[in-house]
Amino acid sequence: MCCAVLFFFLLIVQVDGVWPLPQQLDQSADRNSLSPQRFSFTYGRDSAAQTGCSVLDAAFKRYFSIIFPDFTKGSGLLIVKTRGCDGYPDEDSDESYNLSVSEGQAVLRSVTVWGALRGLESFSQLVYQDDYGSYFINKTEIVDFPRFAFRGLLLDTSRHYLPLHAILKTLDAMAYSKFNVFHWHIVDDPSFPYQSRTFPDLSNKGAFHPFTHVYTQSDVMRVIEHARMRGIRVIPEFDSPGHTQSWGKGQPNLLTPCYKGDVPSGSFGPVDPTVDTTYKFMESLLKEVKFVFPDSYVHLGGDEVSFACWQSNPNVRTFMEKMGFGKDFTKLESFYMERTSIVWQDVFDYHERDTVLEIWKGETYQAELSRMTKAGHRVLLSAPWYINHISYGQDWRNSYAVQPQNFSGTEEQKKLVIGGEVAMWGEYVDATNLNPRLWPRACAAAERLWSDEEKTLNADLAFPRLEKFRCELLRRGIQAEPLFVGHCKHEYDGL
Amino acid sequence: MCCAVLFFFLLIVQVDGVWPLPQQLDQSADRNSLSPQRFSFTYGRDSAAQTGCSVLDAAFKRYFSIIFPDFTKGSGLLIVKTRGCDGYPDEDSDESYNLSVSEGQAVLRSVTVWGALRGLESFSQLVYQDDYGSYFINKTEIVDFPRFAFRGLLLDTSRHYLPLHAILKTLDAMAYSKFNVFHWHIVDDPSFPYQSRTFPDLSNKGAFHPFTHVYTQSDVMRVIEHARMRGIRVIPEFDSPGHTQSWGKGQPNLLTPCYKGDVPSGSFGPVDPTVDTTYKFMESLLKEVKFVFPDSYVHLGGDEVSFACWQSNPNVRTFMEKMGFGKDFTKLESFYMERTSIVWQDVFDYHERDTVLEIWKGETYQAELSRMTKAGHRVLLSAPWYINHISYGQDWRNSYAVQPQNFSGTEEQKKLVIGGEVAMWGEYVDATNLNPRLWPRACAAAERLWSDEEKTLNADLAFPRLEKFRCELLRRGIQAEPLFVGHCKHEYDGL
Repeated sequence: MCCAVLFFFLLIVQVDGVWPLPQQLDQSADRNSLSPQRFSFTYGRDSAAQTGCSVLDAAFKRYFSIIFPDFTKGSGLLIVKTRGCDGYPDEDSDESYNLSVSEGQAVLRSVTVWGALRGLESFSQLVYQDDYGSYFINKTEIVDFPRFAFRGLLLDTSRHYLPLHAILKTLDAMAYSKFNVFHWHIVDDPSFPYQSRTFPDLSNKGAFHPFTHVYTQSDVMRVIEHARMRGIRVIPEFDSPGHTQSWGKGQPNLLTPCYKGDVPSGSFGPVDPTVDTTYKFMESLLKEVKFVFPDSYVHLGGDEVSFACWQSNPNVRTFMEKMGFGKDFTKLESFYMERTSIVWQDVFDYHERDTVLEIWKGETYQAELSRMTKAGHRVLLSAPWYINHISYGQDWRNSYAVQPQNFSGTEEQKKLVIGGEVAMWGEYVDATNLNPRLWPRACAAAERLWSDEEKTLNADLAFPRLEKFRCELLRRGIQAEPLFVGHCKHEYDGL
Repeated sequence: MCCAVLFFFLLIVQVDGVWPLPQQLDQSADRNSLSPQRFSFTYGRDSAAQTGCSVLDAAFKRYFSIIFPDFTKGSGLLIVKTRGCDGYPDEDSDESYNLSVSEGQAVLRSVTVWGALRGLESFSQLVYQDDYGSYFINKTEIVDFPRFAFRGLLLDTSRHYLPLHAILKTLDAMAYSKFNVFHWHIVDDPSFPYQSRTFPDLSNKGAFHPFTHVYTQSDVMRVIEHARMRGIRVIPEFDSPGHTQSWGKGQPNLLTPCYKGDVPSGSFGPVDPTVDTTYKFMESLLKEVKFVFPDSYVHLGGDEVSFACWQSNPNVRTFMEKMGFGKDFTKLESFYMERTSIVWQDVFDYHERDTVLEIWKGETYQAELSRMTKAGHRVLLSAPWYINHISYGQDWRNSYAVQPQNFSGTEEQKKLVIGGEVAMWGEYVDATNLNPRLWPRACAAAERLWSDEEKTLNADLAFPRLEKFRCELLRRGIQAEPLFVGHCKHEYDGL
């Protein structure tokens, strides 16, 4: 165990849940009163993390304010480096924790600081106030761990630019739902807001605006650190060879010139896979990406490549012949993806991991899961969780009904599902509507990815818990929309 | 003409629209430069409204800040009572205006202050900045008037409580789109947030919370005055005999006790139409409503009455027999509505106006329009504009395609369509998601209700104008969601 954290309080009926539901939760009606003046978080004597642990010192400060919003002034922040506190969460991070709340004391045990963060979140959701404003927590035993290691949320900052604070706020809310991966779909056709140190023209010419609509290196670092403090990985996506129109503006000769008959039409297609300059550019760019983003994953896209432009270009056709690809442009695409992966692995010097495939194609995701895992690939499920798609009413129930391992396949195949992610694509979303579209709708997938499926399949049973959790999100300043008719004690107060 | 307002500026290409499109708009490429330091609004010598006109003095201040956001500090507000400036807009208000922008001068002419407000709005949309930040306006001639006299927007403050500032903000945005009626669906089954001076228990016991989730008399007055200053009528709705569950909490013996066999079941149905106390209560309540809300319209509802409870109650059955209604509960409903209307007209001493019917039943609204107007009723169209119903993508196009007079009937019948209204029902809407769901989606109906239909039926042509108008809404602080991929110069900056 990395951490054993003890909380002290005084002695003393509300039995209520935690979202997402812990694997094992036993609550009694015995309630203990908490005094904000006397309450403290303390590191246990046998804890490897002690005062000075950046992640947990900051989490104590944060959660004290969340639990006792009127008593934040006296708290302080200590930052001293200690082992295990200064790294980044990764796919092997142990997020399990045990929480035991008894008379006068609560004990939180975890293997890692990341598990301690998850336990603090649960603890904060257990505390409640009575009608006189006194704080209480019931006698509780929690044994908890995530069902899946990868619980992601995708934001798209290319179709619309999202201001930094919108991303940071999303990370806050993600932590409240125990999401642990921020998939940053940072660039795409419409704009290139990532300010590259190696290729500054990519954003100078490819962003919606070179100053107001970009992420500077400092912005990216703030996102990564804000995420780290909440146990969240940041996986950037640099999707190619398609989805790269904005790249072409700042990097001449990268995209394939499309032809109309014998002459260039003036428009451009996917990345040109036939020239060495392309791979040299990708190597430099990915080298920078590896340097800037600490996570071992980078999403390289490879989706939705239109072949028409490649086909129109005489150089590409000559290259196809030379390589013996015939008329099969999927071979050219594979050639590009392989060379890019090799470039990537050269950059990383990291040959052990193989590729993780993300299932994003709509209707038939069960068949895809079956097929991909049969071929031995590790997979991530995203298709049923494109929550940018909205409809009238309680559409969180659809997300909640998803069963990621319910496909035909062996137990071994099921284990290859490492998790899933909620995707908020940006065609119709920017900072004006991001938060109410995300929350609490994304919470449905969060519970599916964290909790025991057998205990959480009934959406009607989940409804009152989710309603309560949504009010808690409002209280914490997240602009989470209502599930149905009703009210919260603390409504969203807008500006 | 009530008002002739002159704006002075210096001499000096962007030809762009106004939303909703004026009836007649001629713009040239000649542009005039505006200097915020020298710019002023001045009342013409032959204007009936002069300095001291509360509506226009406030509008000058407001629009100066909108047009020149960086130059607001020097402006002042003068409030002196003058004729025509201290009344309320009503259904007969003339909202027409003419605007002529030529070299060094703009002249706005209108019959009423309400027309002047519409013209100021158009003027503010004509001013633009070049890349150096200089302000310009093109030579322009506008002749403009509304297609329909009633251009409404409904907010539902019963299913969810909307804080006062959310309502005020909505009124701001309504004025930008030239809406002129705020239909305040203030109470309904779930809660009774209207704090009545005559029956304080209605909100004390029927609101979600008697202090935090109510509209005090002072709140209501602020709404009415904020609306008046923008030329917007406030029509409250007190829907009965159905939709009154929350009324029953604070007004004993108002609702019909439902029976299970021979004994009361403990639950309650619609208002009890068989007892005199009901009509005495309605008279007192409506007397107060008339006193508080200056508009000549009050929406009395009368929709969706469930007969099951009435049918279960022995007193109601006895009453039906006595009245000779047989088993036809629609007769009992009509009896109630007629008596309530009589009560209402007694209160109002206002027998000239007959009832305006609102078409809210979904699919077959053309048939309803035909039927109702054939019977000689004046009608309001709302059915196709229930914009609480959301779907993925550009659903504003559906609202834009609505043709309120496209039904089978005579020219006389068509004239009985006095307008329409956008409805934002509150099942899934509160302050967290109200603004992005309203704007710019409601703008589509705003243009249909104000502008010449023949000039504005093509949604593809409207798209770039609406996109530009949405950016303008953002610049003015309205959290309007994007129509599609892209960006605005001034993005929404959230908190």
